[in-house]
Amino acid sequence: MRSIVGGSIVGVKLILSNMEIKEKFGLKVKVLREEKGFSIEQLANISNVDRNYISDIEKGKRNVSIEIIEKIILALDTGFKDFFSDNNF
Amino acid sequence: MRSIVGGSIVGVKLILSNMEIKEKFGLKVKVLREEKGFSIEQLANISNVDRNYISDIEKGKRNVSIEIIEKIILALDTGFKDFFSDNNF
Repeated sequence: MRSIVGGSIVGVKLILSNMEIKEKFGLKVKVLREEKGFSIEQLANISNVDRNYISDIEKGKRNVSIEIIEKIILALDTGFKDFFSDNNF
Repeated sequence: MRSIVGGSIVGVKLILSNMEIKEKFGLKVKVLREEKGFSIEQLANISNVDRNYISDIEKGKRNVSIEIIEKIILALDTGFKDFFSDNNF
């Protein structure tokens, strides 16, 4: 089981490392949003960012600006330091 | 002397905390660029970002996209984790 689990961790890292930055950012937003138990609608309301735009962001389709990044990070009740703290970026 | 130095550290933190995210990002780019001993021209060449745009970024005038952020961060030979690791963001 360890090798499979180890393999899957390596697999995930391989996938993440090949992702574009837009996709990595979107994936992290989605993970944190779901951890917080927010719907996209709720995150949109809290962050004051359009819900369709957030949906696109999570799909890795948007080359987001730093001001939008800040709005979303604050709405997820975290900060730049913590948001970008994992080695996937 | 300590209180003045202490005062100035507090002073700097006050200034930084009132800055917009564009300004904080620009200031950090400028500090890291100068630490590396790069001119704006050199950073522009390495990052493949227009030199005037980098100049505006450092003045806090540009709402940079995450792809431009990545280009500049990589050109400064750092990563998102380290770049955003200080509490000023």
